[in-house]
Amino acid sequence: MRLNARSDYALRILMTLAANGGRPMTIAEIAVRFDLSVHHLQKIVWMLGQIGITRSIRGRSGGVALAKPAGSINLGRILREMEKDTALVECFRVDGGACPITPICRLRGVLAEAREAFLQVLDGCTLADVADNREALAALLNLGEPPKVSSTQTAPCS
Amino acid sequence: MRLNARSDYALRILMTLAANGGRPMTIAEIAVRFDLSVHHLQKIVWMLGQIGITRSIRGRSGGVALAKPAGSINLGRILREMEKDTALVECFRVDGGACPITPICRLRGVLAEAREAFLQVLDGCTLADVADNREALAALLNLGEPPKVSSTQTAPCS
Repeated sequence: MRLNARSDYALRILMTLAANGGRPMTIAEIAVRFDLSVHHLQKIVWMLGQIGITRSIRGRSGGVALAKPAGSINLGRILREMEKDTALVECFRVDGGACPITPICRLRGVLAEAREAFLQVLDGCTLADVADNREALAALLNLGEPPKVSSTQTAPCS
Repeated sequence: MRLNARSDYALRILMTLAANGGRPMTIAEIAVRFDLSVHHLQKIVWMLGQIGITRSIRGRSGGVALAKPAGSINLGRILREMEKDTALVECFRVDGGACPITPICRLRGVLAEAREAFLQVLDGCTLADVADNREALAALLNLGEPPKVSSTQTAPCS
């Protein structure tokens, strides 16, 4: 199974913002660090803003920043939003797909249960859990020195 | 998230063979029922044969059939095989991908745990669990009258 690129990039954006200690970054500054398209990230940042995860700051030192503490950003919430239009298999599509056994298929329920089990692992995890090693992340991403924040939280998540 | 088409089609093939009461079917007979490519299904049937799930029967009334009872065919085993080359996200690729934070990323472990949680739901489920309504499946797939088999098993799986 695979997540769509939107989920992958949304998580990278959020980890980068968390590692940057709450200071805003431009989308171009994030994109260059992952060699990704600014245009692609703009759409994802817009989606994150729509659900209140990131906020835009105007002005010369503006950009995008986390809209709330990393410990309040649930990863299951992010994945559920980014994957909401992705069908696990054909019969999960909005149009129902074309598989002839769909009306009586007992596999669909099992697959839905499995998808939920996947998401529930992320439900138990916040951005702070996975970005707790912020100094190391900031160094790898050339973010400069982020504010020192003590934490005892470690992944995997509670 | 989405499964690759190989997984989807492998499960359809197995449910069809289970609904057909153990009698062999040609790949063309299966393909036409799902409006799928014979060539594509041939590769999947070959993979299922390689792991001992299906067997080929030669001769005029030959084709492909289940190699063991549906109750002995674990769906987690099928998904793990069909998805083994599919990277959940870029850093799960064999080549490791190009994400700069991969060496210290704490998200990877959480995503691997979530993937395992998905597969473990399927590990608890056999083909018999999801193909227990074989008469109804056979009718929808125009398979003719399969042998009567009494069963009390219902999905979702134990």
